Amino acid sequence: MSASGEITANAIRAVDVIRKKRDGHELSRMEIDFLVRGYTLGQIPDYQISAWLMAVFLKGLSRAETAILTDAMLHSGEVLDLSEFSAAKIDKHSTGGVGDKTSLVLAPLAAAGGLIVPMISGRGLGHTGGTLDKLEAIPGFNANLTTARFREILRACGCAMIGQTAEIAPADRLLYSLRDVTGTVESPYLICASIMSKKLAEGIDGLVLDVKSGSGAFMKTPEEAVFLAELMIETGRRMGKKMIALVTDMNQPLGLCIGNALEVEEALAVLRGGGPEDLRELCWELAAWMFHLGGRATTVAEGKRIASELIRSGRAFEKFREIVALQGGDTAAIDDPARLPRATHALEVISPRSGYVGAIQCEDMGTACTLLGGGREKKEDSVDPAVGIVLHKKNGDRVAAGESLCTLKYNDQARADRAKILIEQCYQIVDSPPAPGKLIRQIIPANSTG
Amino acid sequence: MSASGEITANAIRAVDVIRKKRDGHELSRMEIDFLVRGYTLGQIPDYQISAWLMAVFLKGLSRAETAILTDAMLHSGEVLDLSEFSAAKIDKHSTGGVGDKTSLVLAPLAAAGGLIVPMISGRGLGHTGGTLDKLEAIPGFNANLTTARFREILRACGCAMIGQTAEIAPADRLLYSLRDVTGTVESPYLICASIMSKKLAEGIDGLVLDVKSGSGAFMKTPEEAVFLAELMIETGRRMGKKMIALVTDMNQPLGLCIGNALEVEEALAVLRGGGPEDLRELCWELAAWMFHLGGRATTVAEGKRIASELIRSGRAFEKFREIVALQGGDTAAIDDPARLPRATHALEVISPRSGYVGAIQCEDMGTACTLLGGGREKKEDSVDPAVGIVLHKKNGDRVAAGESLCTLKYNDQARADRAKILIEQCYQIVDSPPAPGKLIRQIIPANSTG
Repeated sequence: MSASGEITANAIRAVDVIRKKRDGHELSRMEIDFLVRGYTLGQIPDYQISAWLMAVFLKGLSRAETAILTDAMLHSGEVLDLSEFSAAKIDKHSTGGVGDKTSLVLAPLAAAGGLIVPMISGRGLGHTGGTLDKLEAIPGFNANLTTARFREILRACGCAMIGQTAEIAPADRLLYSLRDVTGTVESPYLICASIMSKKLAEGIDGLVLDVKSGSGAFMKTPEEAVFLAELMIETGRRMGKKMIALVTDMNQPLGLCIGNALEVEEALAVLRGGGPEDLRELCWELAAWMFHLGGRATTVAEGKRIASELIRSGRAFEKFREIVALQGGDTAAIDDPARLPRATHALEVISPRSGYVGAIQCEDMGTACTLLGGGREKKEDSVDPAVGIVLHKKNGDRVAAGESLCTLKYNDQARADRAKILIEQCYQIVDSPPAPGKLIRQIIPANSTG
Repeated sequence: MSASGEITANAIRAVDVIRKKRDGHELSRMEIDFLVRGYTLGQIPDYQISAWLMAVFLKGLSRAETAILTDAMLHSGEVLDLSEFSAAKIDKHSTGGVGDKTSLVLAPLAAAGGLIVPMISGRGLGHTGGTLDKLEAIPGFNANLTTARFREILRACGCAMIGQTAEIAPADRLLYSLRDVTGTVESPYLICASIMSKKLAEGIDGLVLDVKSGSGAFMKTPEEAVFLAELMIETGRRMGKKMIALVTDMNQPLGLCIGNALEVEEALAVLRGGGPEDLRELCWELAAWMFHLGGRATTVAEGKRIASELIRSGRAFEKFREIVALQGGDTAAIDDPARLPRATHALEVISPRSGYVGAIQCEDMGTACTLLGGGREKKEDSVDPAVGIVLHKKNGDRVAAGESLCTLKYNDQARADRAKILIEQCYQIVDSPPAPGKLIRQIIPANSTG
């Protein structure tokens, strides 16, 4: 017993918790709860939490600490109780990439297959797109629903797609804003707690994770992606959730379209049974795992057959139409994508020489879309739903000198000029075709049924 | 060139500097200046600086970065120009301990020997005492002087002893307050920059460092103390200052007295040629190095002879009397220490058994003095100058069961009771005498003349 321990009150002091993590020790539930609750209530100042976040970034958290932090953030706000639904409540989450419109396909597909999909999504930031921005490219679509309305739509059609409400994990919103300005974003422990606290607030039974790795993802290497995937799986399992993660490639955009309305159009093509091969493959695989976790398919192969049949029959498309209608969107734009917002101008990016596409700097492709106005540099920026990029060539494709690599769809010439300069640097043209990449790199845990 | 680099302004962003240090890279002068200046001007918020401090704590600074940080903090405020004095301007700094009253002896001793000693000191905090608190135990002594008055007194007698003014290194005051609440105090890099920025603001030519190590010091091991000493020496030398460091033992209090008025009395005893052996030895050694750095002695042995003669002749004592008079203190209390503040009560701490003092938990001894009211738990606390502890037994001393180990001098019974409980746990009584410790462990750099 030290004398200073005697003098200070019995209460935990924030500075002592910071020091403990700084020195690499494991924090107790009481200490983590104290920090998260104190910060959410405004009793612990930003400057103490930011020092703690940096200590966490550099010293890490144990699996137990990560789960406790997630739990504390989850319970800083409302946790939906969806026990009124007898069907399995299953969601999918992607760690973010370029051209990733799988949620627009999966939510109606899974709901059409009898699952309840209470999907709370985010907006795009930096080079990545966000499901909410894509949905809002549909005229009239309202993603800002109350919890009560969210529940009504779930009852009506088994799926609703909204943004984070003020009631969901307020600690995460506060912590995320602070991480953004203190260089503590890219910590797997903090990413895990942020994602899982929001997803578990949805009241789900299971979650399929799509953890991206590559030049367009936050996790640049497969090792980082696997580490994060395992962390999220264990965190979810400690909370009694069914969890699976696919580590997938993000070294080039997914599909051929980048930009909000363009991505809606591409998702609609998949729901109608068409669309680019890589996007279809990933949607089938993710949907199959959702059906498997939700008890609708005993194997992934069976899940894929269910998905395929729901597309072929038009039931998945019809479900999407239903969701859009219930959330105030214009279904005429679903039936005829020409009614979606369209950019006024187009510009081709030409290959300077003949050869093969050897690599695409994927993060910069996403940033180019942001430069066009299709994404946000800062949270308060508005987005132009119409603009974007349509790829004609992807990795391994043969290209002739003077042939178009992609088309920029734009409304502002100055923005298009800047985006074009960047995209010209993105494409690497080589003499011989590169080894084909694998879209689905790994399924975690490895011994999953499938 | 990344697109986001293109979009953001050319200005440095605090978050990028934080990330760079977080990832273990060396910061440039421009980046460090940007942080220190921005923080001092209130343009960079606490929460970014605290994240950066934690990154510095865990990733360290290079020698160059440490010097740049010190320089930036130094130039956040006024740097005294003492070029009007032809004599060498030499100061001494101790990293803080228990019972360390050497400054009270050294400042007049060095000034009596012809050096200019522009000593800016701090107050005690936690278990350590502070020179200012000790000086203010002398009735009337005023340590809060303007820079102008400080200079006048230096002209009059070659030495003045004041507290940190608002003009001296304001960045250090801000950073220190933030470190205190964010668990980033004990970083050698930040300690070095804090100490050196204040000391170099004094306009000195050279500095003798007394870096304490042991149970009563901030640096618990000799290795930590040597590391800090080398860092401070290199930082000072990069700024053209003559530097030397003594790594000294703080595993037991220095001298026999702890407490402000008691320590003034013990310092006076040394200035009169008496006092306890360990305190005398350290004062002679430090003074000798001050004379050596200041060009008054070619060897340390010669410096010790000079010190010895200045004590024997009474000139050092007379110089202290002169300083006290110029700073408004009551010289009658210097001539007759019975006029210093005295506690009303005394209490003996008795040895429970016979044997030898094997160890003294030195930090807790300092804390016990704080419990008596002689120090501060919080910066805003006031101190009672009269209270303290007089040791009768130190390491290696033989003690009989029932014999007094030390006497508590107190004014408040409840405080005395708490301090007594703590002190009873400080003394370790063993059966055979421990190996004698060495007071001066190391001189850095090792190849110094002496």
